[in-house]
Amino acid sequence: MNIAERINAYYEDMVAIRRHLHMHPELSFQETKTAQYIQQFYASLTIPFRANVGGNGVVATIQGKYPGKTVALRADFDALPIQDEKDVVYKSTVDGVMHACGHDGHTATLLTVARILHEMRDELTGTYVFIHQHAEELDPGGAKAMIEDGCLDGVDVIFGTHLSSNFEVGKVGYRPGPMMAACDSFDIIIQGHGGHGAHPDQTKDAVVIGAQLVMNLQQLVSRRISPIDSAVLSIGGFVADNASNVIADTAKLSGTIRTFTEEVRDKMTTEFYRVLDGTMATADAQYTIDFIKGYPAVVNHEAETLFIRDIAQTLDFVDEAFVMTPTMGGEDFAYYLQHVPGTFFYTGAHPGYDVPHHHPMFDIDERGMQVAAEVLLNAAIRYQQHTL
Amino acid sequence: MNIAERINAYYEDMVAIRRHLHMHPELSFQETKTAQYIQQFYASLTIPFRANVGGNGVVATIQGKYPGKTVALRADFDALPIQDEKDVVYKSTVDGVMHACGHDGHTATLLTVARILHEMRDELTGTYVFIHQHAEELDPGGAKAMIEDGCLDGVDVIFGTHLSSNFEVGKVGYRPGPMMAACDSFDIIIQGHGGHGAHPDQTKDAVVIGAQLVMNLQQLVSRRISPIDSAVLSIGGFVADNASNVIADTAKLSGTIRTFTEEVRDKMTTEFYRVLDGTMATADAQYTIDFIKGYPAVVNHEAETLFIRDIAQTLDFVDEAFVMTPTMGGEDFAYYLQHVPGTFFYTGAHPGYDVPHHHPMFDIDERGMQVAAEVLLNAAIRYQQHTL
Amino acid sequence: MNIAERINAYYEDMVAIRRHLHMHPELSFQETKTAQYIQQFYASLTIPFRANVGGNGVVATIQGKYPGKTVALRADFDALPIQDEKDVVYKSTVDGVMHACGHDGHTATLLTVARILHEMRDELTGTYVFIHQHAEELDPGGAKAMIEDGCLDGVDVIFGTHLSSNFEVGKVGYRPGPMMAACDSFDIIIQGHGGHGAHPDQTKDAVVIGAQLVMNLQQLVSRRISPIDSAVLSIGGFVADNASNVIADTAKLSGTIRTFTEEVRDKMTTEFYRVLDGTMATADAQYTIDFIKGYPAVVNHEAETLFIRDIAQTLDFVDEAFVMTPTMGGEDFAYYLQHVPGTFFYTGAHPGYDVPHHHPMFDIDERGMQVAAEVLLNAAIRYQQHTL
Amino acid sequence: MNIAERINAYYEDMVAIRRHLHMHPELSFQETKTAQYIQQFYASLTIPFRANVGGNGVVATIQGKYPGKTVALRADFDALPIQDEKDVVYKSTVDGVMHACGHDGHTATLLTVARILHEMRDELTGTYVFIHQHAEELDPGGAKAMIEDGCLDGVDVIFGTHLSSNFEVGKVGYRPGPMMAACDSFDIIIQGHGGHGAHPDQTKDAVVIGAQLVMNLQQLVSRRISPIDSAVLSIGGFVADNASNVIADTAKLSGTIRTFTEEVRDKMTTEFYRVLDGTMATADAQYTIDFIKGYPAVVNHEAETLFIRDIAQTLDFVDEAFVMTPTMGGEDFAYYLQHVPGTFFYTGAHPGYDVPHHHPMFDIDERGMQVAAEVLLNAAIRYQQHTL
Repeated sequence: MNIAERINAYYEDMVAIRRHLHMHPELSFQETKTAQYIQQFYASLTIPFRANVGGNGVVATIQGKYPGKTVALRADFDALPIQDEKDVVYKSTVDGVMHACGHDGHTATLLTVARILHEMRDELTGTYVFIHQHAEELDPGGAKAMIEDGCLDGVDVIFGTHLSSNFEVGKVGYRPGPMMAACDSFDIIIQGHGGHGAHPDQTKDAVVIGAQLVMNLQQLVSRRISPIDSAVLSIGGFVADNASNVIADTAKLSGTIRTFTEEVRDKMTTEFYRVLDGTMATADAQYTIDFIKGYPAVVNHEAETLFIRDIAQTLDFVDEAFVMTPTMGGEDFAYYLQHVPGTFFYTGAHPGYDVPHHHPMFDIDERGMQVAAEVLLNAAIRYQQHTL
Repeated sequence: MNIAERINAYYEDMVAIRRHLHMHPELSFQETKTAQYIQQFYASLTIPFRANVGGNGVVATIQGKYPGKTVALRADFDALPIQDEKDVVYKSTVDGVMHACGHDGHTATLLTVARILHEMRDELTGTYVFIHQHAEELDPGGAKAMIEDGCLDGVDVIFGTHLSSNFEVGKVGYRPGPMMAACDSFDIIIQGHGGHGAHPDQTKDAVVIGAQLVMNLQQLVSRRISPIDSAVLSIGGFVADNASNVIADTAKLSGTIRTFTEEVRDKMTTEFYRVLDGTMATADAQYTIDFIKGYPAVVNHEAETLFIRDIAQTLDFVDEAFVMTPTMGGEDFAYYLQHVPGTFFYTGAHPGYDVPHHHPMFDIDERGMQVAAEVLLNAAIRYQQHTL
Repeated sequence: MNIAERINAYYEDMVAIRRHLHMHPELSFQETKTAQYIQQFYASLTIPFRANVGGNGVVATIQGKYPGKTVALRADFDALPIQDEKDVVYKSTVDGVMHACGHDGHTATLLTVARILHEMRDELTGTYVFIHQHAEELDPGGAKAMIEDGCLDGVDVIFGTHLSSNFEVGKVGYRPGPMMAACDSFDIIIQGHGGHGAHPDQTKDAVVIGAQLVMNLQQLVSRRISPIDSAVLSIGGFVADNASNVIADTAKLSGTIRTFTEEVRDKMTTEFYRVLDGTMATADAQYTIDFIKGYPAVVNHEAETLFIRDIAQTLDFVDEAFVMTPTMGGEDFAYYLQHVPGTFFYTGAHPGYDVPHHHPMFDIDERGMQVAAEVLLNAAIRYQQHTL
Repeated sequence: MNIAERINAYYEDMVAIRRHLHMHPELSFQETKTAQYIQQFYASLTIPFRANVGGNGVVATIQGKYPGKTVALRADFDALPIQDEKDVVYKSTVDGVMHACGHDGHTATLLTVARILHEMRDELTGTYVFIHQHAEELDPGGAKAMIEDGCLDGVDVIFGTHLSSNFEVGKVGYRPGPMMAACDSFDIIIQGHGGHGAHPDQTKDAVVIGAQLVMNLQQLVSRRISPIDSAVLSIGGFVADNASNVIADTAKLSGTIRTFTEEVRDKMTTEFYRVLDGTMATADAQYTIDFIKGYPAVVNHEAETLFIRDIAQTLDFVDEAFVMTPTMGGEDFAYYLQHVPGTFFYTGAHPGYDVPHHHPMFDIDERGMQVAAEVLLNAAIRYQQHTL
């Protein structure tokens, strides 16, 4: 049996795993039952694994017959605080929690990949590491802690993929260099001085100060970052919940800053604080801030990315490998790529209707898992012969 | 007995009435027990009155022996949704409701004035109308409905006063012309188009649109109203309660516009809508608005105001009659002055510690009621002889 | 002859003086020939005077027969850099210079007043001082220097008037308290860092910084000054004269700040610098500023103002004395009122067509000078008997 | 002799041509003597040419011995209104006019390339067209008119290069896809309503309106264009040249909009007008605009660009072919690429000191012309055998 045939053989099992996980989603950092499920899978196949890696993470290892490189494959397994509104048999059984980003599919795919490599172990060169990562959705994420707990020790290369409802089944999206953004966020509390709406002169109007800050911050992207570079600053929350005849004492602003390079990230941060401090000085107001430095950018290594592209173009389940436009979304896969070469690619799984990730109607076409499995298996095996 | 002596004689009763009301406050439009208390007072003295005037209002009438002018005196009697935090024996017995603006004192004063005029009725010329008004604190107020229900029919002049914690006992503040502001208010819901913080180009960012509106509205006062005129526009509420990585779909802004003349009020309203419409057009956004045209400005009639000043300067309990600076606060006494001549003045009742109105620690020095009673009694009686 | 008759007797002479001055206008601080003309007038009447007071100023003095108070009357005599476009026989003979604010009329009036008082000197009590002031139109003005040079020494009271094209002949406008504004001005040069329009990130865009400053400064009036107080800040000049594809290195902003009280003036100045510094800090830019503290506000003394009102209402040439609305324009008469009691009033001289002051078509109805003379003469004489 | 040897043989001549042109620069659309110089060069070699193509353009043609493809090579030849401040023997002899962008070098290179191809004509396949374009620096440019006048008729491919002071000699910069920006520009006159600085309510303040427009336009880049796309809007000129106590009647704003794709260009234009119209509506002001749609983006064809890269990497004079970062600068080479395949690349000519283009000290290292000539010659000749 070739690889595609092996995938076909386990396709129903893979779907069953995915649906089981879909029905039993767990929030980030709380995924204990999912972790146990993964552990049992490996235990039943007598594949050695390490549990509680950096938290709820699970790392399994398969040794090929012949010595070679160590290839890591990663899948995340946490769910989201969203109510599943789909009308399907495998609908989430947990109120307000849902696999609305496809991590169930990632996990089912990786378990199936491990099963197949386990079967093929006597033909294989090298070592295969399966990184089942918890908590991708929630800062500080699971990747960092798993790396600190040794999940990349001895690893030569890492591959990971994301199933995407945006692309048709059969499409594989790759991109050398920056592909996903560094995501920082902040909560600011502006401390003005409240009072009655009739007497602005006795106050420091936190609503006006906040509005001025929002307007001033527009210039970070429009004036202070090169038009060639990408950066975004959005303020999602602005809360000063007062009656109409009150002048706000405080206002709370929450936002996100997203960039692709550390240089631009640093400049955005520096200029953000400059504008914040200057605006507060202008208004003689104070502030407190909680600035959360989130995941860095996912910067794919060029050689490994083109390696995936070249492989994908030869596979049965792949119709087209295309260059992805980078996205300002974030992923803690970024951390792995700071330690070892590798790449993160997208695998199409459009469910037949248009729906974004993180939506109550989110679903995937499960055949996308076949594509992902085929690319990962071929990449892992062929990497042994590969000279970049 | 002269008037001051009569007031002294009933001072303890007046304080008792005030404290009873203070202990049993009722919110605007819900003041049924207070209205009954007032009715019983008049009934016990056999002074004829009309209940349920324009709602919970009560109007009593005393006929002097000789025909003359009809003088109306007004006191309001509603309380506020504020928790009384004073440690006094007459503390509010109603949780979360409090006479935090002195209307209890107004009512005790006016009842005492009526009692004294009733005693003096055989010496009096003219007719005396006692307007006990409900719901001053809450738009649309009680004054308008009471007027529509006839409380000013046949009235030649009206006087009213406000006890004030800002001025010492013995002080009487008067001002010809505009004295308190017209108070309009608005709630705007800006309808943008929400989305993910990473993709502003796919959205219409309601936080930025709201911020721009706040900034643009600053120009109404700074550029579009004469610096000689007074106007204020404050936005107290700005609510777009989203996570940091979301772009707001909607934002709710609440504010107030205050002016002293109908001309400036009209210009502020016209320019407000111009800026609102223009800002939304700039952003290609929609909005809904609830614009509440509130009380008009309190514009005191000059002759009646100087009449009060001249009287006040002659009285035992008055130390000083001074020209008030106008305040941007509002009062529905404004409506009475649109129908008949009259004036609204302030009577000092500083409680011995600094505390603003509408504050949980608000109180009055009850001797201020003596001053108020003396001015009202003298004004009412002497007005019969007065040629303006 | 009574005073009105005396004025009538000299009316043609007064008109001739005014027209002579109108034909020979001189700019502020350059009014040497006008000063000589005034000196010759007094010399010809053997009225003692002092020349070159604080510059081109002239101060004449008439001693009444009986000892009394010293009353000063002031008229300014400088013209403006405006081209006279009127088609009249007394049109300016000096290219680009014109009496476009009525100072010629002020001077003709005061000389005539002096002539009449000189004639009446044997009936008069007290001393009369005629302050002919140069340079009212141009900061730092002549008043300050004349005061420092002793023109108010021994003076008990001062009166001055302005002929106005806005009011009909026969009208006299008075106002106790603030009547004209303190006028400060500024020139700011924002030092950004220029560059090519395609590369904003390599620059500090002085146009955007200037625009932000303009917007931020709107809040001084809208938020930081009480709506009851008057203040205006206008930026008249904004110059960054670059090609479309350049980013401005510098921008020059010029503006004015006007207020009625020193308290508000101080607050405007403090907040102006706070906003300026804060805005520059926000942009990491530098600036230089030339801040010119101009004339203070004209604050009329109440007793002297009502004295003028009461007199005006009794005079032949006066139809009506009315309360002026204050104006945000400035006058260095303000300085005199900081030293001695007095008042500054307006005298109607509408020329028959609507035209503002400082306009190429400006003119006065010369009969307004009669009114001004009558009020000044009566005020000066009656002030001797007056107990304020 | 191979191509490099031929270039060496003519290097001194090429330098002499460049220096002659450098000493006799002519402004865009006025380059008649330069055109004659070019014509004489071709005439002296008996190479047929067409003069006055689309204005001052010159198009020469060399026919190879064997039939083949038609390859066009383009060089521009206009200079700039800049004063040459270099201290060199070949300094500009024309006051205020200077070859400050290297077009003299482009022309010398292309003439030398033509001379060599003319010598080699008996060995050559295909046709070689030499497009000497006038007026690259000034909208609407010469390219469009030359195309309309037939300069691309029968052309299969076009190559052009720009000598650059930013890169070392030996470097060749290429980029498939968007490389230089579409450059639109605008002049807006805001028509407010002027007046005196003391009376903003009687005006529509063109400085404030202009400032608000500048601030509002920041959102085009920050909110309305995808962070992945590139766009810039800069306002270089803001002129309202008034005294400090005046409120501006008009303000003139001049700016540029630069983009890489027609889709983004269209969106920027649409949103620009939306913000402009909305801001004017907010202020009840009018405007006039001169919107100049400039050159489109230079979008290099991928195959032709990689063809140049592959050739460059094989040449004697080339040290490195590197991927250029796109620049927001503009070039009317863009028009040629809208009609035929081709590419525009950069050739390093760093003069030994850092100096930007369009600077009074601008110069090139003339050896850069060797590199440019070698790439163009090889590209032109090898393209005959090339199958893309």
